[in-house]
Amino acid sequence: MKKAFLKTFGEQNVRTYPIDEIRYRSDDGRTLEVVNDLRPMSREQISRLKKLFDKRAQSWKPIDRSGVWRYREFLSAFKPFDEVVTMPEGNTPIFSMPQCARYVGMKTLFAKHQGMNPTGSFKDNGMTTAVTMAKKLGGKMVACASTGNTSASMAAYAARAGMKSIVFIPHGQIAYGKLSQSLDYGALTIQINGDFDRAMDIVQEVCNRGTIYLLNSINPFRIEGQKTIMIEMLHQLGWESPDWVVVPGGNLGNCSSFGKAFAELEQCGFIKKIPKIAVIQAQGANPLYNSFVSKDPALRPVHADTRATAIKIGNPVSFEKALFAVDISGGLVEQVSEEEIAAAKSVIGLDGIGSEPASATTVAGCKKLVKQGNIKPDETVVCILTGHLLKDPDYTVEFHRDELFLDAKRASSVAGTKRISAEGRNNRPVQLEADTQVILDYIKKHGF
Amino acid sequence: MKKAFLKTFGEQNVRTYPIDEIRYRSDDGRTLEVVNDLRPMSREQISRLKKLFDKRAQSWKPIDRSGVWRYREFLSAFKPFDEVVTMPEGNTPIFSMPQCARYVGMKTLFAKHQGMNPTGSFKDNGMTTAVTMAKKLGGKMVACASTGNTSASMAAYAARAGMKSIVFIPHGQIAYGKLSQSLDYGALTIQINGDFDRAMDIVQEVCNRGTIYLLNSINPFRIEGQKTIMIEMLHQLGWESPDWVVVPGGNLGNCSSFGKAFAELEQCGFIKKIPKIAVIQAQGANPLYNSFVSKDPALRPVHADTRATAIKIGNPVSFEKALFAVDISGGLVEQVSEEEIAAAKSVIGLDGIGSEPASATTVAGCKKLVKQGNIKPDETVVCILTGHLLKDPDYTVEFHRDELFLDAKRASSVAGTKRISAEGRNNRPVQLEADTQVILDYIKKHGF
Repeated sequence: MKKAFLKTFGEQNVRTYPIDEIRYRSDDGRTLEVVNDLRPMSREQISRLKKLFDKRAQSWKPIDRSGVWRYREFLSAFKPFDEVVTMPEGNTPIFSMPQCARYVGMKTLFAKHQGMNPTGSFKDNGMTTAVTMAKKLGGKMVACASTGNTSASMAAYAARAGMKSIVFIPHGQIAYGKLSQSLDYGALTIQINGDFDRAMDIVQEVCNRGTIYLLNSINPFRIEGQKTIMIEMLHQLGWESPDWVVVPGGNLGNCSSFGKAFAELEQCGFIKKIPKIAVIQAQGANPLYNSFVSKDPALRPVHADTRATAIKIGNPVSFEKALFAVDISGGLVEQVSEEEIAAAKSVIGLDGIGSEPASATTVAGCKKLVKQGNIKPDETVVCILTGHLLKDPDYTVEFHRDELFLDAKRASSVAGTKRISAEGRNNRPVQLEADTQVILDYIKKHGF
Repeated sequence: MKKAFLKTFGEQNVRTYPIDEIRYRSDDGRTLEVVNDLRPMSREQISRLKKLFDKRAQSWKPIDRSGVWRYREFLSAFKPFDEVVTMPEGNTPIFSMPQCARYVGMKTLFAKHQGMNPTGSFKDNGMTTAVTMAKKLGGKMVACASTGNTSASMAAYAARAGMKSIVFIPHGQIAYGKLSQSLDYGALTIQINGDFDRAMDIVQEVCNRGTIYLLNSINPFRIEGQKTIMIEMLHQLGWESPDWVVVPGGNLGNCSSFGKAFAELEQCGFIKKIPKIAVIQAQGANPLYNSFVSKDPALRPVHADTRATAIKIGNPVSFEKALFAVDISGGLVEQVSEEEIAAAKSVIGLDGIGSEPASATTVAGCKKLVKQGNIKPDETVVCILTGHLLKDPDYTVEFHRDELFLDAKRASSVAGTKRISAEGRNNRPVQLEADTQVILDYIKKHGF
């Protein structure tokens, strides 16, 4: 059987490396991707595999229960599957969002909520595969530079695997609240004197020189797990492709992995139509958008600024892979303002679904794309929500108290922000006397 | 077919009411419980039903996917099942906890993590049934007094159901962060001038006088959904009862619902052995423990004080039902100190599992019960973790920075607290130069 291997991304000057060689880039510094052992399948093979996926979905065995490892025929790089580290992740629901559909001007609108993962974000889908590979490669210690979702996910999976983990953060620039998860899961947290870019450099040097395995998003095995978000979505939709998948764009690993998923599924004959991928960036962190509208395929980093911290990235690792994904799917890239994000997030909330701000770029982006005529009101659209509301409760409280962007210094530095009022809805707490009649009158009077 | 109905809890002066009458207590002020239409089943019937549960577990239909409604044969009060409001909740994993097993002195120890629910706590299991009933009864508006998990869950399910929701809180005593969820899901948040007991009184008055449906834990339909936590657990364990189920005790709805689940399952012939229920309370909020050790079945409310806010309840609603559950299961009640809770929580974290402080009473309680000889080291024990780590990140950060209970006023008011050191493990962040060699040396030197 053909084995999986690593290759440089793209078609020029291709270099390949064995799957079990510890490396994060090619010798000439390019990003790597996993090439899986996949080939076209007959109709019978496809039908048999779909039935197998159905069967695994009813099993309580962690490897079958996982929304990642259930689809392990598409994860041949990790064979044999005897050391899988799983929580189990995935199995995230697809919600209809009637309030959001109305808000964006569509008949229906769906959300697949990756914030329902064990540590509260989509990072778990990629961390289960990357930590599993770390274990297969004999790793005892893993590391990343991150202040949020990545460190939380890495620390949890490392703990499950019995490995130690190290999180590098710039000193003095981090709210400790964001680190509650990695501290809890036992990660060694090192604050270094220097900014975030320096922390990124340091973690790579430390991993290159020591026996520590790097789990930042340069690691190609994270994309493999994230890929299954789309496989699970298609499974949930009875293997009918939606017209659009709308996804937030920060470091661009998600949309890259979606493109890879669709390419592999099509290669095997599993799907006939590739959904169009719409990547939505915050206006203040928009290098992919700039490249897309100027038709210039070069990455020009920006100084990132947005309250949607999960996508506050000016120099995304998976830039080229993301362009490829948008291209093969016939998709597009759009940007949205801080107000559009905040307003969309509040409408998602009214559908009973809590998300972190970055997730709301999807609904904000849909609204814009419907208005432009790029998305038709009766098309099938799945928005990928990437993180749970509880990842950033302060943002929500500030919005509803009408205090978001009130900090003058911040407001002027965040691209295109002003106080939000008309769209979305502030839901301010009210104060009333402890008197039943007063309260009933208030409720009646305000038509609540 | 016999219909479900409401009856007063207990065997004395039984009063019954129709299932579709809006009422929260009997005319003489007693708590109510749902009596389902259940009868003994033949071996074939049981085997057929188990297969049906298996089949539903592989379906993507929300009503089957839900870890509550999958077991709807035990929820006859909600028939017909055509208006079910589901996220879908449940489907929570059972984790092995090797670090915790070592910590408490057992061979293995399991956790069923209800914090993996959509809004991050076990409340979702009961809210799906209670909001479904609100909808069936024609409710347009629901309300509760709560500062935490209940309000978050109610607001989310009400939004999914297209209902309005109202949260009552005492003015000036609430950190807004805790309300981020109910604000996001669009609940009207009313701060009343008065303390929490006054807020409780007011919400009951408002619901009794108006057309607003009460969703505080007095509502008997919440217990029905929480019941399925045990049915799902048994399903996951291949219908083999564990020796013990260990559960935190606050308002006591969880342990009450577990007792009801076991009684009904036994009545139908579904299980042969009822697991022993161990209820663990915080030392600072221990009325059930006091009653259990003094063999006095009367509820004597206490002034509750504990950092485990989810169980900071001195006058629990489900006191009698909880005593019944402990009794029929041959279980017990134990209490643990603030330090024991904090230390246990940090060990749960080392297993890669994040929980809110109240959940950690279970592991702390196990340690105590193993030491006492009440739990044998080779018994099968499932700890019920009730809330996600992200529900209370401040607690975690304070613990790991060694700042928990440092507030003198708090420390003296919280029963039996002192600074934590030996047990559990503080995981303090360290600060280092941005120098690879310095960092590698540090890691090596500290044996990390």
